[in-house]
Amino acid sequence: MTTLDGQPLDRAVLDTLLRRRMFYAQAFDIYGGVSGLFDYGPPGCALQANIVDTWRKHFILEEDMLEVDCTMLTPHDVLKTSGHVDKFSDWMCKDPKTGEIFRADHLVEEVLEARLKGDKQARHLEAGAAVEETAKEVEGAEDKKKRKKKVKDIKVVKLEDSVVQEYEEILAKIDNFDGKDLGDIITKYEIKNPGTGGDLELPVAFNLMFGTSIGPSSNLPGYLRPETAQGQFLNFQKLLGFNNEKMPFASASIGKSFRNEISPRQGLLRVREFLMAEIEHFVDPENKSHPRFPEVADTVTLNFLPKEVQQAGKTATVRKTIGEAVREGMVDNETLGYFLARINLFLKKIGVDENKVRFRQHMENEMAHYASDCWDAELQTSYGWIECVGCADRSAYDLSVHQKKTGQFLGVRETLKEPRVIEEYEVDINKKVLGPKFKKDAKAVEERLAVCSNQKEREAWSETLKNGQSISVLIEGLGKLDIGSDLVTVEKRKRTESVREYTPNVIEPSFGIGRILYSLMEHVFWTRPEDADRSVLSFPPTIAPTKVLLVPLSNNVAFNPLVNSISSKIRKLGISSRVDSSGATIGKRYSRNDELGTPFGITIDFQSVKDDTITLRERDTTKQVRGTVDEVLSHLKALVDGTETWDETLTKLPIFTGQEVEE
Amino acid sequence: MTTLDGQPLDRAVLDTLLRRRMFYAQAFDIYGGVSGLFDYGPPGCALQANIVDTWRKHFILEEDMLEVDCTMLTPHDVLKTSGHVDKFSDWMCKDPKTGEIFRADHLVEEVLEARLKGDKQARHLEAGAAVEETAKEVEGAEDKKKRKKKVKDIKVVKLEDSVVQEYEEILAKIDNFDGKDLGDIITKYEIKNPGTGGDLELPVAFNLMFGTSIGPSSNLPGYLRPETAQGQFLNFQKLLGFNNEKMPFASASIGKSFRNEISPRQGLLRVREFLMAEIEHFVDPENKSHPRFPEVADTVTLNFLPKEVQQAGKTATVRKTIGEAVREGMVDNETLGYFLARINLFLKKIGVDENKVRFRQHMENEMAHYASDCWDAELQTSYGWIECVGCADRSAYDLSVHQKKTGQFLGVRETLKEPRVIEEYEVDINKKVLGPKFKKDAKAVEERLAVCSNQKEREAWSETLKNGQSISVLIEGLGKLDIGSDLVTVEKRKRTESVREYTPNVIEPSFGIGRILYSLMEHVFWTRPEDADRSVLSFPPTIAPTKVLLVPLSNNVAFNPLVNSISSKIRKLGISSRVDSSGATIGKRYSRNDELGTPFGITIDFQSVKDDTITLRERDTTKQVRGTVDEVLSHLKALVDGTETWDETLTKLPIFTGQEVEE
Repeated sequence: MTTLDGQPLDRAVLDTLLRRRMFYAQAFDIYGGVSGLFDYGPPGCALQANIVDTWRKHFILEEDMLEVDCTMLTPHDVLKTSGHVDKFSDWMCKDPKTGEIFRADHLVEEVLEARLKGDKQARHLEAGAAVEETAKEVEGAEDKKKRKKKVKDIKVVKLEDSVVQEYEEILAKIDNFDGKDLGDIITKYEIKNPGTGGDLELPVAFNLMFGTSIGPSSNLPGYLRPETAQGQFLNFQKLLGFNNEKMPFASASIGKSFRNEISPRQGLLRVREFLMAEIEHFVDPENKSHPRFPEVADTVTLNFLPKEVQQAGKTATVRKTIGEAVREGMVDNETLGYFLARINLFLKKIGVDENKVRFRQHMENEMAHYASDCWDAELQTSYGWIECVGCADRSAYDLSVHQKKTGQFLGVRETLKEPRVIEEYEVDINKKVLGPKFKKDAKAVEERLAVCSNQKEREAWSETLKNGQSISVLIEGLGKLDIGSDLVTVEKRKRTESVREYTPNVIEPSFGIGRILYSLMEHVFWTRPEDADRSVLSFPPTIAPTKVLLVPLSNNVAFNPLVNSISSKIRKLGISSRVDSSGATIGKRYSRNDELGTPFGITIDFQSVKDDTITLRERDTTKQVRGTVDEVLSHLKALVDGTETWDETLTKLPIFTGQEVEE
Repeated sequence: MTTLDGQPLDRAVLDTLLRRRMFYAQAFDIYGGVSGLFDYGPPGCALQANIVDTWRKHFILEEDMLEVDCTMLTPHDVLKTSGHVDKFSDWMCKDPKTGEIFRADHLVEEVLEARLKGDKQARHLEAGAAVEETAKEVEGAEDKKKRKKKVKDIKVVKLEDSVVQEYEEILAKIDNFDGKDLGDIITKYEIKNPGTGGDLELPVAFNLMFGTSIGPSSNLPGYLRPETAQGQFLNFQKLLGFNNEKMPFASASIGKSFRNEISPRQGLLRVREFLMAEIEHFVDPENKSHPRFPEVADTVTLNFLPKEVQQAGKTATVRKTIGEAVREGMVDNETLGYFLARINLFLKKIGVDENKVRFRQHMENEMAHYASDCWDAELQTSYGWIECVGCADRSAYDLSVHQKKTGQFLGVRETLKEPRVIEEYEVDINKKVLGPKFKKDAKAVEERLAVCSNQKEREAWSETLKNGQSISVLIEGLGKLDIGSDLVTVEKRKRTESVREYTPNVIEPSFGIGRILYSLMEHVFWTRPEDADRSVLSFPPTIAPTKVLLVPLSNNVAFNPLVNSISSKIRKLGISSRVDSSGATIGKRYSRNDELGTPFGITIDFQSVKDDTITLRERDTTKQVRGTVDEVLSHLKALVDGTETWDETLTKLPIFTGQEVEE
């Protein structure tokens, strides 16, 4: 990973900065901390709020989505129906001797990567080349003390060429393996507890939901939601009503979800409690076109990593417009494509480096149990490519299963413009005869005959009965039964439908705000070339935690009235500011705020007190302009709102070079 | 409870409106619902977001508070230390026959109120008067089906005058009783299961925290936080550092908390998962003055209900300025008083009816285990007076207990301007003699002597030893021991301190956003006198879920370009709007939006298409003005931002009466 200005990213330096300036902190630090739980301090909290605010404007307001806020506590039955109780799990291996627990896929990944690294070193040594450092080895300061490094030593051992290839293929497909596959790999490649070399038990599923009990009598088991989606599905019928029964439409929700990770590391990227922003776009399964797709089709170009490439064990991306990708069928439909494009535009807006974004399609086994197609927006970080946004086509899965379980209609009834004539084989059962004949088994027979909606089978039945023969059906527990035309009639009939009933499909863009936030911090972090100690976080003004720093030249009380009046004017403009009237040099004070990513600075000097002029400094260029308080504040407002760029400001206000930043 | 225009509030009508327009919905409704859990639909969600946004500006931005976002999952040890594991509970009674569980204080309240009601009816009947309906009996539609009404029948039985007085005193002090008190009342007044008349077991404590387990091996028990405060306390030292070690300062947090209520009813007022906004203001215990107190002292007048009045079994409030209240000592200090005033200003800003707010002081037994003084802002609703904001002085409780438990310093080290000379008795132990003499007990003896910091006792020791006698100390397990001057020296000495070390006190204003939101909806709900079916929610523009409705005269396509262009301009102004181009009459369309509390409406008619003029309608007055699109939008912006009132707008744009609202 390189920074904005092409230097290698030193994660340890960034991490120290983020903790020192309280972007985040280990939760319950003074109690020894709990892995996978982090608190955001003031700048992290403001950054998160600004990302969420931008998200809300970019998606919810722009497309009139229906925002809802549903509970996190969720009763067992709902998540049983959705499939999470049975399927929302990771594979874990236990070391029976030490009691240690490993997440199976991560363990395989780390061990094989370590072996490949050892092989590389062995080969380099042979060739006499220098041993290369990889980003994987640079460990953050994050809970280093407590965490046992899983793979301690890289053993310099050369592998067979064929083995290297096998390892690389496994790593490319790692997300595609289930528990049995992982168990086979662990056995075949003799993967052991890296700390002790001890044998591991085979992988077993560990459900990732936090369980609890609702109410005083412990009779209502529940979970903390693993996603915000279910609440939106359960409210589908009410939301459709709120939308005056008009389709398609989208609901959206911003809130915390929970995942009881097996052994979370990777700092803010793998946490047990996280902020999600999820959209559920409900669409007619027969028409997944999108009216605004033409706005993005030819103007938005993405890096794609389709599933075929990965399944072949490769990772090369292809770059094309979203229009092309949909036309070719690589991306299934316009609605899915529209959202991929909008996701990319959102990421760009908040300051993510476009060259560090790729859209990776899920492989067959990797897909969540509810999804029919899924693309992840992955951001490149020093930890590798990280899934930050998922964009899944959940098909009709969720609405169907909840409808089936509760018996409540979750769908759309659409009055057809022209009634539709349908011709189908229908089954009539002569209950008067069938009942007495089969007695207690009558119901099972009826169901077998009526439930079948396979038109081919019904056509065959119709022919058989027309020929005066009996049809033969297999019924569990009863064996094969012969049913004659005295018991059943099967006929092709016409009927007219004026209402079409369907279960919408759901396209779901799902954002992990914390992962985006962390990746963004890596993307905007750099160090001034003239001074290795002066790090900068180049957040765009709309996203920056604080927008402007007020810096009186010194802590002389003569500055106070002007500082207070400017500060109050800035507050009225709705812009967040801070005053630094400490005794430190101006250069030092700006430097501290570069670390916080504050994009602008206002200097108040003795001239200001005389003629009401102030200077405005921009963080990345460190250039300054000068104007009256009102002039400067009106440009500041435009810069923060994103309606003016700094380059434009430079042409509109005189550049100020008189008062150099001393240091 | 009466509405804005003095009519009695019909809660059932309001509740039907709130559910029909999806302000809120029973969570997991299609699964039968879970009591105490609710979802917010689009208008409820927008209302909540606007209240939170106003809160953030009114408190955090206005006072430069440090906002943090801490995790909800909290390990057991933290909440054990804070006292929640042992003390955060309600009293519940079980009916051993039916298994039903009742919250003891609520049961006592309901039964006694029912008896008082029966008594009232009996007295009225005697006097021949009509039986009065009270708000308590009007049950909302809310989960009526499932919930057993606890007190089914009001028995018309006249009580002794002395019994009536006893009941009324119990009700006035209900929050002051512990489990034993409640048990005594239940026994003395023969309170039974109201459904069956069966006996109840005595009250037992039920902890209100939701338990869970963190990590795969179930070895880290935890809870969902019952308040957002603990995360702020644990980060105190980092926050102080972030604030450049300057005191006083405040942190703040907005997030969900959880309370496993025993049998929640009262709709949105008693829920198991709720949004809180909490401020922790850290202050020097020796100086609780507040620099901005003069801004509110004489201008903010509050209704107070001090504890003495309640303990005397009364509920009459006194009205005075916050300045007076602090001067008199009724409110303990300026900082507490400043926040009470700011709370009142906030409630007014979001549209709460000032006449339905009172500040009630907690009684001794009622106070949370950590508080030294506490005032609740209570809002009057059809359910009675409801605690919506707590403002507690938590003293040094939390920081002290966490410091003691973890050994990590949680306090302030202040360099004194002038060093301080302190003269105190100090104890020196002659370990060389004491050790061999007491052997394994030496440590216990040392501790007994050293730990005592009671200057009076030390002075006495000093005298005794000076007189050549031994001192006598009692040590558990060892009995009384005589300690002579060979073992210990006690002397008065002077020392100079240049650093003062102290644990800050915490003033905590804590807001239940959901309760405020619901109470507000009751306060702004009314019905147009000319039409009982036309209900209105008169939210202030800043708080209203949607700010403006765009209404083309009909669904004629000729209006579309203008509607789209106005809609897009409004979006650019950051104002949330909706278009209603349905075929309904304009009157009906406005009527629907009055129910949503949309304060403004823009009508686009044929004249608009010709000359670019539109009308702007205000919800409460239904008056309209007309101007060009740009004129109207600039006034709209000012109205929504709160920089212009509708009365002002009426003087600036021509009033429009030409096109009447037809209906």
